[in-house]
Amino acid sequence: MLHLVGLGLADETDITVRGLEIVKRAERVYLEAYTSILLVDKEKLEAFYGRPVIEADRELVETGSDDILAGGDKVDIVFLVVGDPFGATTHTDLVLRARELGIETTVVPNASIMSGIGCTGLQLYNFGQTVSMVFFTETWKPSSYYDRVRENIQIGLHTLVLLDIKVKEQSLENMARGRRIFEPPRYMTVAQCAAQMLETEEERQEGIYGPDSLAVGAARVGAANQKLVSGTLKELSTVEMGAPLHSLVLLGRRTHDLERDYIREYAVNKETFDASYVKGYGASL
Amino acid sequence: MLHLVGLGLADETDITVRGLEIVKRAERVYLEAYTSILLVDKEKLEAFYGRPVIEADRELVETGSDDILAGGDKVDIVFLVVGDPFGATTHTDLVLRARELGIETTVVPNASIMSGIGCTGLQLYNFGQTVSMVFFTETWKPSSYYDRVRENIQIGLHTLVLLDIKVKEQSLENMARGRRIFEPPRYMTVAQCAAQMLETEEERQEGIYGPDSLAVGAARVGAANQKLVSGTLKELSTVEMGAPLHSLVLLGRRTHDLERDYIREYAVNKETFDASYVKGYGASL
Repeated sequence: MLHLVGLGLADETDITVRGLEIVKRAERVYLEAYTSILLVDKEKLEAFYGRPVIEADRELVETGSDDILAGGDKVDIVFLVVGDPFGATTHTDLVLRARELGIETTVVPNASIMSGIGCTGLQLYNFGQTVSMVFFTETWKPSSYYDRVRENIQIGLHTLVLLDIKVKEQSLENMARGRRIFEPPRYMTVAQCAAQMLETEEERQEGIYGPDSLAVGAARVGAANQKLVSGTLKELSTVEMGAPLHSLVLLGRRTHDLERDYIREYAVNKETFDASYVKGYGASL
Repeated sequence: MLHLVGLGLADETDITVRGLEIVKRAERVYLEAYTSILLVDKEKLEAFYGRPVIEADRELVETGSDDILAGGDKVDIVFLVVGDPFGATTHTDLVLRARELGIETTVVPNASIMSGIGCTGLQLYNFGQTVSMVFFTETWKPSSYYDRVRENIQIGLHTLVLLDIKVKEQSLENMARGRRIFEPPRYMTVAQCAAQMLETEEERQEGIYGPDSLAVGAARVGAANQKLVSGTLKELSTVEMGAPLHSLVLLGRRTHDLERDYIREYAVNKETFDASYVKGYGASL
């Protein structure tokens, strides 16, 4: 049987009791380690579980799924996923492959950033569709996310922006030469995201948002050292939030007074916050 | 200190290891028991924790929050919430009250229906805002949810509909006479929700959706006996999904082929599913 077990958001103790029981009795345990990361390393998980954990990189999951699933008709195989198992499409693929092989699947849900972002004080009901932000390069600055943001903004809803992570990426040169040398991991920061959003607006000029638009930066959601900051996109484009993972929420105009009070508490600057707020936000708009 | 601890979606083993540790060492443990329910009863939780659990009904939380928080500056108080602690506004109020009293708060996140609904095979990225459906009465059929659904439908997004539960409700007569007699709990079914949606459309006549619109019914998400059914709203209006809790997802037209393949597997009737699908769905529309 294949068990997709969610790990939650922060550390090794965020696994559920049910998830931990399954991990302890399984034949093999894989850790999905490229669409998100836990805030502790693999060794800490292994010590906590009292057993080895196999790191599954993109290559293994996308081309070696049959190795992961080998023997799954007889033994229990665990695939650990940071957050909730259904957060990323990849795992749907693994489930479909298991189904083809006649292997049963169970899922152990856990906290996901999609609901964990409620820690900001923003109501989950007031969020539109979630978007992803990738690292821009000199020549590649994809802005399809901007169209999704516009749809949310026009309705007055908040937008959760999930930030890119680059793990086990090869440089073009190393890839061309077939060298299995990997670049250091990179995790997008709130500041980088805010700056890229302003870059897109600069280019598209549709006035969907601007330097004075309000947003919330969230770092290490669910961890003891979680950090929240609210402010204008311009302010957030230089904010320092510390270690990964980061997320950003662009505020919708249909913000409730209770939400405003909550996020104002952790504003970079309450004066600029208030000045921006009165210009474009509030449930009555 | 006040600890808001998420219980997840199904049974007593869905608590996280961190959450369980906090419950075991706390001075008092409350269970929020009116915005959602766990699929096991309080006694099972008490046996699992090896300690008493105090049921907190709406009255206690809304008017007796200072009793809940009493001594919170010195001892650990746990407030257990089904799903994730930030799923409902009520708990934000409790946090704000704790803040006023100078009591620190921690949150232990867990799975929420907002992310757990990914078990349907529908991508969380493709959901718009979430709406709530309350029990209609002869004279009260609130349809503000319909406006939210329209906004999602116009963009092509799925809509998660959370279904009403009535726990410890008094009849008007008993309330007027001051009798503390409560009606039996009621949990809205997928069938009731689908029927009410069609009733609203019938009344509003805006053609936002209709009897042939596709939807997914989900019962007991995250539990071993989870059940998923896809079909037209008309089909779902008579479907039998068993014990609570139920949720419904109204399909958006921007459905991806992979999503279609996944939900088609559990269609009430694959023929009517296909017939409805070709008329109005698909990412290319």
